[in-house]
Amino acid sequence: MSQGNKNARPEARLAKGFRDIEAAELGGLNEMLAKIREVYERYGFEALETPAIEYTDALGKFLPDQDRPNEGVFSFQDESDSGEGGQWMSLRYDLTAPLARYVAQNFQTLPKPFRRYAFGNVYRNEKPGPGRFRQFMQFDADTVGADSVAADAEMCMLAADTLEALGVDRTNFVIKVSSRKMLDGYREALGLVGEEHNNTWLTVMRGLDKFDRLGREQVELLLGPGRRDESGDYTPGAKLDAQSIKRLGQLLTLRLHVAVQAGVTGPVFNPLINTGQKSENTVRRTLTSTIASIMRDHVEEFHGRDVREIRVLEEGLRELEEMGALIAAAGYDDGRIIIDPSVVRGLEYYTGPVFEAELTFEVKGDDGKPVRFGSVGGGGRYDDLVARFTGQKVPATGFSIGVSRLQAALSLINAKKTQALGPVVVLVMDKAEVARYQQMTQSLRHAGIRAEMYLGSSGMKAQMKYADKRNSPCAIIQGSDERALAQVTIKDLIEGAKAAAAIKDNKEWKEARPAQFSVSEASLVEEVKKLIARHQG
Amino acid sequence: MSQGNKNARPEARLAKGFRDIEAAELGGLNEMLAKIREVYERYGFEALETPAIEYTDALGKFLPDQDRPNEGVFSFQDESDSGEGGQWMSLRYDLTAPLARYVAQNFQTLPKPFRRYAFGNVYRNEKPGPGRFRQFMQFDADTVGADSVAADAEMCMLAADTLEALGVDRTNFVIKVSSRKMLDGYREALGLVGEEHNNTWLTVMRGLDKFDRLGREQVELLLGPGRRDESGDYTPGAKLDAQSIKRLGQLLTLRLHVAVQAGVTGPVFNPLINTGQKSENTVRRTLTSTIASIMRDHVEEFHGRDVREIRVLEEGLRELEEMGALIAAAGYDDGRIIIDPSVVRGLEYYTGPVFEAELTFEVKGDDGKPVRFGSVGGGGRYDDLVARFTGQKVPATGFSIGVSRLQAALSLINAKKTQALGPVVVLVMDKAEVARYQQMTQSLRHAGIRAEMYLGSSGMKAQMKYADKRNSPCAIIQGSDERALAQVTIKDLIEGAKAAAAIKDNKEWKEARPAQFSVSEASLVEEVKKLIARHQG
Repeated sequence: MSQGNKNARPEARLAKGFRDIEAAELGGLNEMLAKIREVYERYGFEALETPAIEYTDALGKFLPDQDRPNEGVFSFQDESDSGEGGQWMSLRYDLTAPLARYVAQNFQTLPKPFRRYAFGNVYRNEKPGPGRFRQFMQFDADTVGADSVAADAEMCMLAADTLEALGVDRTNFVIKVSSRKMLDGYREALGLVGEEHNNTWLTVMRGLDKFDRLGREQVELLLGPGRRDESGDYTPGAKLDAQSIKRLGQLLTLRLHVAVQAGVTGPVFNPLINTGQKSENTVRRTLTSTIASIMRDHVEEFHGRDVREIRVLEEGLRELEEMGALIAAAGYDDGRIIIDPSVVRGLEYYTGPVFEAELTFEVKGDDGKPVRFGSVGGGGRYDDLVARFTGQKVPATGFSIGVSRLQAALSLINAKKTQALGPVVVLVMDKAEVARYQQMTQSLRHAGIRAEMYLGSSGMKAQMKYADKRNSPCAIIQGSDERALAQVTIKDLIEGAKAAAAIKDNKEWKEARPAQFSVSEASLVEEVKKLIARHQG
Repeated sequence: MSQGNKNARPEARLAKGFRDIEAAELGGLNEMLAKIREVYERYGFEALETPAIEYTDALGKFLPDQDRPNEGVFSFQDESDSGEGGQWMSLRYDLTAPLARYVAQNFQTLPKPFRRYAFGNVYRNEKPGPGRFRQFMQFDADTVGADSVAADAEMCMLAADTLEALGVDRTNFVIKVSSRKMLDGYREALGLVGEEHNNTWLTVMRGLDKFDRLGREQVELLLGPGRRDESGDYTPGAKLDAQSIKRLGQLLTLRLHVAVQAGVTGPVFNPLINTGQKSENTVRRTLTSTIASIMRDHVEEFHGRDVREIRVLEEGLRELEEMGALIAAAGYDDGRIIIDPSVVRGLEYYTGPVFEAELTFEVKGDDGKPVRFGSVGGGGRYDDLVARFTGQKVPATGFSIGVSRLQAALSLINAKKTQALGPVVVLVMDKAEVARYQQMTQSLRHAGIRAEMYLGSSGMKAQMKYADKRNSPCAIIQGSDERALAQVTIKDLIEGAKAAAAIKDNKEWKEARPAQFSVSEASLVEEVKKLIARHQG
């Protein structure tokens, strides 16, 4: 590793694709994490923290959209092992692969099912872009050792409850559910099974996954000849025939189709269309009793075959039917959780139900037009991840929140909070008296008040500016005159700012709420407490 | 990167030197982090989170005890940059080097001084050992842009207040303070200035740093001919002459020496000797007014020179004198914070006062003999770190807690808490009724009760065992008979365990506190709430 000329100064710069998170954002993040944790624990999940570094072979490679074999993860060789040729290690790219390692390693002693939650940063060695970082936080819950779709349905309810706990209104989100088996069935029906079709199928999956963003027409280009975007970049297509493209395209809009056929366009099927022409109960009944049969009809129409001939497709439909029943029984079929076969999910390891948590309110898109905020998390069933290690199948399902993206959404939803108050700043008027100022500061702190003595070397004006920059409620001032009287001056910076903002000098108001007043040293703590209470109330 | 045979099963194993942290430990960790954060914020520090990955040149190399040039940090090349020859990136090895990068990068817009706290995992590419991990958490506070020793004194008070807030009694910890300038002065006095002496001096520093663990006699071997430990391993020495060794050895015990000369052996000087033969005020006065002059005498005696000739030594003494005065004025000179010239601190970047937070209670050492628990954190002044980037000197000081080590200590101090209650488990007695069980589970959750439906596929006995393993307060049971009556059975697992543990069948007690009872479905939530309140009270 070369660090260049040892005497040259390095440039102070963030590594590309990484970011610093500052106090205001961190405050919101911590509140948010605490609320998510509260819901996850209420659901019976237990905390687990695995390290950020794992052996590369233990993580496996399940990242979507990787063209180069080594792309996607940050990897390095462990030199402590044997000098040269040590084992390869990687930074985790998600929290699921390390969970599979943990479960396989501790299988004998774990309760079964094993239900854990985890949050932490994950790392992707990808080309960074706007809003796309190489380190980001995920917050996951997983149930390992449960093959019942009740476990999948529960994940969807967890997702819905979490979003509500975070203050997202029911009309502003939807959890969409499908099954990877539906897609596997289509693959079979389209005659694309077999390793020689892997690349074609991967291209198909990537294309389908872009439905939300691009719409059906553009996706059909990606399934066929390829697509040139507005910037002129060309993405090669899967080169399917017209018939196959049509069938897959119909799959994407099957949810709407089902809704129309059932005579409902209520929130269960499309939260964007909320006409209320059917009663809530009808909508629920429709979801739980007819969705599978309607889908069956359509699938048969598309493929010209009895669905039951394609076992995996039949399984997928039955899973969705069962999940629908559980969702309805728990009352989440009011538009919070819907069945939508257009859900794909990028990760390769999914084997059954997949879900996507989407925020449905609109924001301004890159082109200035309104677009739905979109996905803030998702998950699904991955029955083969533990078997990678043990050979023994351990069914598992999980849900993962993209924390930064969700936080960005919440900051749009929640009215901007007033900025938190900073610390009280004790000014240093006389350097020989630092011990005295320090004592005042400590007495404020010991009373539970955020406080600090000014520690720089600048004069009074700069100190006041510093206190303003920290959003201090007040500055504490003691010059030699005040010291002689055992007094301190409290300068109320919030009232002061208001007074400064007032157009004319309102003498009366100033007298009623003086921005500066003197008190005895002994009553400093009490007076500052009162002042802060005034500004927080 | 080779992953070996693609079909071979990987072994499920943690990477060497890393660990998983499970729910019980994480619970304690979160409580602890919240308390530390509370104190740091009270001191006016603001949160900041920098990424785990930085450019290698921006981090610099300041790790102690590294023999090979690339040892210490995990590094890899950024392939996204330009394919081959991308920039080197490293995982952060502490939180201070990234802070320096952040401050240099954002200098214009930051309040000055800039006071931030940060916590997070850091990574060391070292040979792991027992209790020595390659990923561990630090919790730091730093003041950047303050050259007054008041900032250093405040760090020591912060450390003391933090330990107290975490429940460590004043008699069980001490914050020890020295100055790197003292050592620099000794280096000069011993004629070891100049690059040709760098290696010798590094060996001296490493030796001195082992005083707490090995004692003066063994350290003197490391300063001289070298030392063979009990296992037979040989560590080469600095090969100093006998006179130099004696002088440095005396430095290590200067604190005790000062105390004796001042006629006090009270807690300010040695918290292990608390005879109280002088009044508290005398002890304070001694610290603040005579420590520097006593040290001066001794230093002169050792070196045969006027201390003032060695400017850096004089500065170091003056710093300690000023800090002592501030510490005494704030009342922390009751043994919580003491001056102790034996403090060295491993990191290379320190330039002034250095501090070490030590827990003084005894634990059983490796050899079975009692030893002090030792360091749980430390810090110091590093005035040159920001200047690495900007060329402009930005004085800074900080304190860092070794979170895992402190948590280990707290678990020794605090009486073992009763294990937290797990979730209520709703049993699945009849698979056709899963929707009903799920509904019960959701009703408990919506009432704020931790609950889950059993999601495995095993029978009743295994389900009860699962509930026990999760430390559930109760299991909820509804078979077909109860369903017909719209009832549920609540099985109190805590009373049940007590009953099972009772030697003889105490009929009366069982009737008073039945371990199993039936209630109506409608009153399930209310009854479970009562049961949990009973066990928590």
